[in-house]
Amino acid sequence: KDLLDVTQLSKDEVMHLLDTAEQFHEINSRPVKKVPTLKGKSVIMFFSEPSTRTKMSFDMAGKRLSADTFALGKSGSSLQKGESLKDTALTLQAMNPDIIVIRDSSSGAAQFLAERLPCSIINAGDGRHAHPTQAILDSFTLRAHWNNQFEGKELLILGDVAHSRVARSNVLMLNKLGVKVRLCAPRTLLPRGVDTWPAEVFTNLDQAIKGVDAVMCLRLQLERQQAGLLPDLSEYSNTHCLTRRRLEEAKPGALVMHPGPMNRG
Amino acid sequence: KDLLDVTQLSKDEVMHLLDTAEQFHEINSRPVKKVPTLKGKSVIMFFSEPSTRTKMSFDMAGKRLSADTFALGKSGSSLQKGESLKDTALTLQAMNPDIIVIRDSSSGAAQFLAERLPCSIINAGDGRHAHPTQAILDSFTLRAHWNNQFEGKELLILGDVAHSRVARSNVLMLNKLGVKVRLCAPRTLLPRGVDTWPAEVFTNLDQAIKGVDAVMCLRLQLERQQAGLLPDLSEYSNTHCLTRRRLEEAKPGALVMHPGPMNRG
Amino acid sequence: KDLLDVTQLSKDEVMHLLDTAEQFHEINSRPVKKVPTLKGKSVIMFFSEPSTRTKMSFDMAGKRLSADTFALGKSGSSLQKGESLKDTALTLQAMNPDIIVIRDSSSGAAQFLAERLPCSIINAGDGRHAHPTQAILDSFTLRAHWNNQFEGKELLILGDVAHSRVARSNVLMLNKLGVKVRLCAPRTLLPRGVDTWPAEVFTNLDQAIKGVDAVMCLRLQLERQQAGLLPDLSEYSNTHCLTRRRLEEAKPGALVMHPGPMNRG
Repeated sequence: KDLLDVTQLSKDEVMHLLDTAEQFHEINSRPVKKVPTLKGKSVIMFFSEPSTRTKMSFDMAGKRLSADTFALGKSGSSLQKGESLKDTALTLQAMNPDIIVIRDSSSGAAQFLAERLPCSIINAGDGRHAHPTQAILDSFTLRAHWNNQFEGKELLILGDVAHSRVARSNVLMLNKLGVKVRLCAPRTLLPRGVDTWPAEVFTNLDQAIKGVDAVMCLRLQLERQQAGLLPDLSEYSNTHCLTRRRLEEAKPGALVMHPGPMNRG
Repeated sequence: KDLLDVTQLSKDEVMHLLDTAEQFHEINSRPVKKVPTLKGKSVIMFFSEPSTRTKMSFDMAGKRLSADTFALGKSGSSLQKGESLKDTALTLQAMNPDIIVIRDSSSGAAQFLAERLPCSIINAGDGRHAHPTQAILDSFTLRAHWNNQFEGKELLILGDVAHSRVARSNVLMLNKLGVKVRLCAPRTLLPRGVDTWPAEVFTNLDQAIKGVDAVMCLRLQLERQQAGLLPDLSEYSNTHCLTRRRLEEAKPGALVMHPGPMNRG
Repeated sequence: KDLLDVTQLSKDEVMHLLDTAEQFHEINSRPVKKVPTLKGKSVIMFFSEPSTRTKMSFDMAGKRLSADTFALGKSGSSLQKGESLKDTALTLQAMNPDIIVIRDSSSGAAQFLAERLPCSIINAGDGRHAHPTQAILDSFTLRAHWNNQFEGKELLILGDVAHSRVARSNVLMLNKLGVKVRLCAPRTLLPRGVDTWPAEVFTNLDQAIKGVDAVMCLRLQLERQQAGLLPDLSEYSNTHCLTRRRLEEAKPGALVMHPGPMNRG
């Protein structure tokens, strides 16, 4: 019924999703970008964090599939008046949506809705927990660049792993698909328990990048420095910024990805 | 042309609205929630107060009836630049909408537009004045639970009656339909002139709730305490909170309603 | 590919646009306001300034032409997180829109996108630079009132010319169409280099208004006074407010236009 985390998907299910996505991807370059797949369905985008890409992507996907879409954000919503998530959920359910896409700053918010509502819940990012649609999209991009081959490829995820639901979901997803994943960050930006993750952990970027097929950069939120996790931003930039020179140590033609918005320099 | 207040509707017209609503209600549970009734019509939702339920309800109703809907709020609108309601109205009219749904903090805003514009105006709540669509919806809910029978039923409206357009519209509507309405609130939360309303007025909840078929709770805005209308929130909760024990004094199976967001405790 | 400024349009192209607009204008008064012209096209409205009229006009135009429309504003967008316009542009392009309508406080923002993206860019106002769709609309209105005749007509643009992209675009457009344009403002509200504009410049309203066929008023932003450009608002009102008495000096039946929101008094 729901898409909450990549852990719920088998490798076969992921491959089926990627194959299906490929068919729909072709629609985006047609002159008439519209198919009737979701005609008469109602999709609510319930986003309680600012977002350009994700919200508009779901809105566009819904409309190109002929669904009716409805945006509900924090500003302009009754969450301002102290309404609890459960009350909001019941209110939304009363309108009989087919799908609720939720982004929330609380880990577990998507699961909370999924357990209480009969409609489909899609997790578009919950706290530091999971971001499964981003991981599916990244797998889709990697597959296209790697000629449908995941097995034996090596990928480096670089940056603030500790606070990134994108990192966590991608590690689990790509490991499932047969990719060897490396992580690289200063110790203060690695999550507790990272040793149990199915990934090789580095703090030194020059070592981490050697021979990888792709580098996935994570955005550093500048607030992290104020929280004492980074003594010095320019020091961090010196040791962990992806430069052309460092990229030469990766495999020739290695792909560089960034979930955006980008940290330049 | 317009729906401004329940006072404009005869009992027959209300029953006709409820019958029509019942047909459309069935659409919400279809796999394809879409009928062509308003195809090619433009509905502007002009909401100058925050709202989850009402705005999204109108948006969804419009789209499921195949209308094009347009949201216009205070933030992002030229009201910020000091434009008057009349100028805005003329601007909106120039776009030839078929329906404008308006929510506004000024009593009379809907009527103001209705007198000046040729399109249909639907009042979705104006100040403390009226909220006719909420009253129609509540009647719809009550009728479903009461097996199409209003005559002789008793309903208690509990809470901040003084500041509630929902209370006022529901008293007028349900009285019209043959329901005996009771009101219960501390004296400071009863409106001036409440003695002229077609309702029995109580300050004691234990007396008010005896034998009613339904209790409709109103939200208390916490700002009221700061305004000096409530000396003590826990005192108010003691005397006027609907509890299980108190509900036992109502008729068995009595319905409890709350327009939301809910005040718990 | 793009509509960035009126300077890019020949007189013939403008007349063709006005003729086409006339056909579509008729759609707005039909019971079913919908034609399939842009069916399956995606229109992004990327507005980084508040706006009632322009944004909703484009939204309505898009939907009445059967396009899917998507609103992207500053609040709720990643511009808040420091994302640059270029990164945002690439993100938007990845979604394969057909048209991006942009309003931005920076002069040149529309051109910046146009040079980088393959989709069509429509400038809905960029800083003090240009507002071509407003100028086309004003020409459309004038043509309807002037029985399809521009040649030899005289129009006065009155108010804060210095800060108005509407004034600049209208001067260029109407001059192209054969209208004699006059400008009138206090010296401090005239732009540098106004002598090179194809218009006659006045500071005295009583002289400027003599015999014109239309007066187009510009909104004065009250912040201008604080910036020292106006010593005294009531003095400005005395000398430059369009009054009934002053209007008697214009041609009988002269048209008065105001882009709104209106400065009354």
